[in-house]
Amino acid sequence: MTERILLDYGSGGRASHRLVSELFLRHLDNEILGQLDDAALLQVSGPVAVSTDSFTVDPIFFPGGDIGALAVHGTVNDVAMLGARPRYLTCAFILEEGLPMEDLERIVGSMGRAAREAGVQVVAGDTKVVPRGMADRIFINTTGIGEVFVPAPPSGHRARPGDAILLSGFAGDHGLAVLSRREGLTFDVPVASDCASLNHLIVRLLEAVPEVHVLRDPTRGGVATTLNEIAVQSGVECRIFEDAVPVRPEVRSGCSFLGLDPLYLANEGKFLCILPEELADQALQVLRSDPLGGHAARIGEVRSGRPGRVVLQTALGGSRLMDMLEGEQLPRIC
Amino acid sequence: MTERILLDYGSGGRASHRLVSELFLRHLDNEILGQLDDAALLQVSGPVAVSTDSFTVDPIFFPGGDIGALAVHGTVNDVAMLGARPRYLTCAFILEEGLPMEDLERIVGSMGRAAREAGVQVVAGDTKVVPRGMADRIFINTTGIGEVFVPAPPSGHRARPGDAILLSGFAGDHGLAVLSRREGLTFDVPVASDCASLNHLIVRLLEAVPEVHVLRDPTRGGVATTLNEIAVQSGVECRIFEDAVPVRPEVRSGCSFLGLDPLYLANEGKFLCILPEELADQALQVLRSDPLGGHAARIGEVRSGRPGRVVLQTALGGSRLMDMLEGEQLPRIC
Repeated sequence: MTERILLDYGSGGRASHRLVSELFLRHLDNEILGQLDDAALLQVSGPVAVSTDSFTVDPIFFPGGDIGALAVHGTVNDVAMLGARPRYLTCAFILEEGLPMEDLERIVGSMGRAAREAGVQVVAGDTKVVPRGMADRIFINTTGIGEVFVPAPPSGHRARPGDAILLSGFAGDHGLAVLSRREGLTFDVPVASDCASLNHLIVRLLEAVPEVHVLRDPTRGGVATTLNEIAVQSGVECRIFEDAVPVRPEVRSGCSFLGLDPLYLANEGKFLCILPEELADQALQVLRSDPLGGHAARIGEVRSGRPGRVVLQTALGGSRLMDMLEGEQLPRIC
Repeated sequence: MTERILLDYGSGGRASHRLVSELFLRHLDNEILGQLDDAALLQVSGPVAVSTDSFTVDPIFFPGGDIGALAVHGTVNDVAMLGARPRYLTCAFILEEGLPMEDLERIVGSMGRAAREAGVQVVAGDTKVVPRGMADRIFINTTGIGEVFVPAPPSGHRARPGDAILLSGFAGDHGLAVLSRREGLTFDVPVASDCASLNHLIVRLLEAVPEVHVLRDPTRGGVATTLNEIAVQSGVECRIFEDAVPVRPEVRSGCSFLGLDPLYLANEGKFLCILPEELADQALQVLRSDPLGGHAARIGEVRSGRPGRVVLQTALGGSRLMDMLEGEQLPRIC
């Protein structure tokens, strides 16, 4: 194969087949993908959860991950949030002519590792190549399919007044890590993305506490935007205790330097869990027993209040509205 | 909403939500998509077929279709080729900052119409916006899920010596239509893309003739490349009768003018069907009774011969190898 991606690799012809067999199959192979038919044949039963995401993150390599790992984690997590065991991924690449082959190899290698760790199989794929200047190096779409294993799947519509709001760990790591690499900023203590697949932890949590009302990973727009969505969907008010939100000191100081709010920064390995108050301690215990939930905390509560609103109770005892942002704080963080 | 796409629409914040509710949901809404959770909850049973494709076609509007309709038809067809009824699509957009909102509206409107005609629901979506110059207007990924309804799904591995090879209609329309629009060529008789969803026709065919061995739509690389894939997967030789391949006179003359071979041009509303010789007439009858298969023809046969090879028997009685192309005849036709 050539050192850089050529238009030929997207032709559907011989060069495409070589890319599939010598690169993609080497990292992602399994019995289903290896069939190479127009569609993959899967055995699934009962209700399934399906989610899709395209990844355009810039830079494509960042502290703690790369676009390949992110494309697996992100979709695995979205499927898991519905109370499902992610089982299958599809994976579609848009490559810019001239992309170094070793970058693609490294990215697909990351995807393979991330998929094995999460216990999912890549069962169908697609590759398009566009002329130089028509895309920015590489975009990846993943679509995930999982089997729902709880009788009442968590949903953004199910938050109820009196529920507790938990966050599974530190807020803002991913957004700040990507931004700092993109802008060439260095901090005394380096910040790495938290990107990780949360599905195994979600299974443990829901097996212990099936009564969870809402699970959602606060990616684009961060904790504040995600809670706004839930407040609207459920017709409730969410109150966050500023003091209680876990934020790494280095993320806090980086944010303060850059004028950013960690509550609006993207996370790729955290989730919000909303559940009846009396089950909060039990859920926290499960979360904290896992490395991915070691810093889980109860960060707020659901009230009837003013439906659709998110209020921050500040460390000084005041309170202010945490609105959904109108526009873009940080483009291309996922 | 603004006249052009801004980075804000990809933020996950308020502008994103407006784009979803005021544009996407208006054309694509259904009960599942309207939930707006991280993942969609579907009820499927038994074996399912899954396929994914990213669409980067240039131009985005072309005679006979646009990137939106194509993104629905293309994935619906791939799912149908496995003997499945396509039921659900996911749909992920990568938009370039500055894309005219009316172009997006027109494209999503096409998707909605194409989905309704094919009888599929768009159940999950995603929108990313990248800065101007980082993508070419719009890329769309669709992933399709369908329920397999035949006991022995057609597969590229099932072609057998003695089988007949059918093509459901004229070859090359899509490739030539896209190319001519892109290059600003005009022909005396205009050529339009054949892009269409084939799933209803496939259901009728497989209900009448469930013994079909292979179904595949000859998109990128055309009939010749697709038959090469099948010849390799099944370990057989495919022989095509040049005389028998239906090609519109205007496509034939356009190809001859441009030095292109219609057998290598992409199709988006045709399929190859390989089945036992004695069932060929029955299958042709079903195909020809449908507007989408009106010009179906028996174009060749499967032999043991030299496995992996495709041979063209020319009108003059000679024969030549139809190899899989090494590179790219026409980039970005889908």
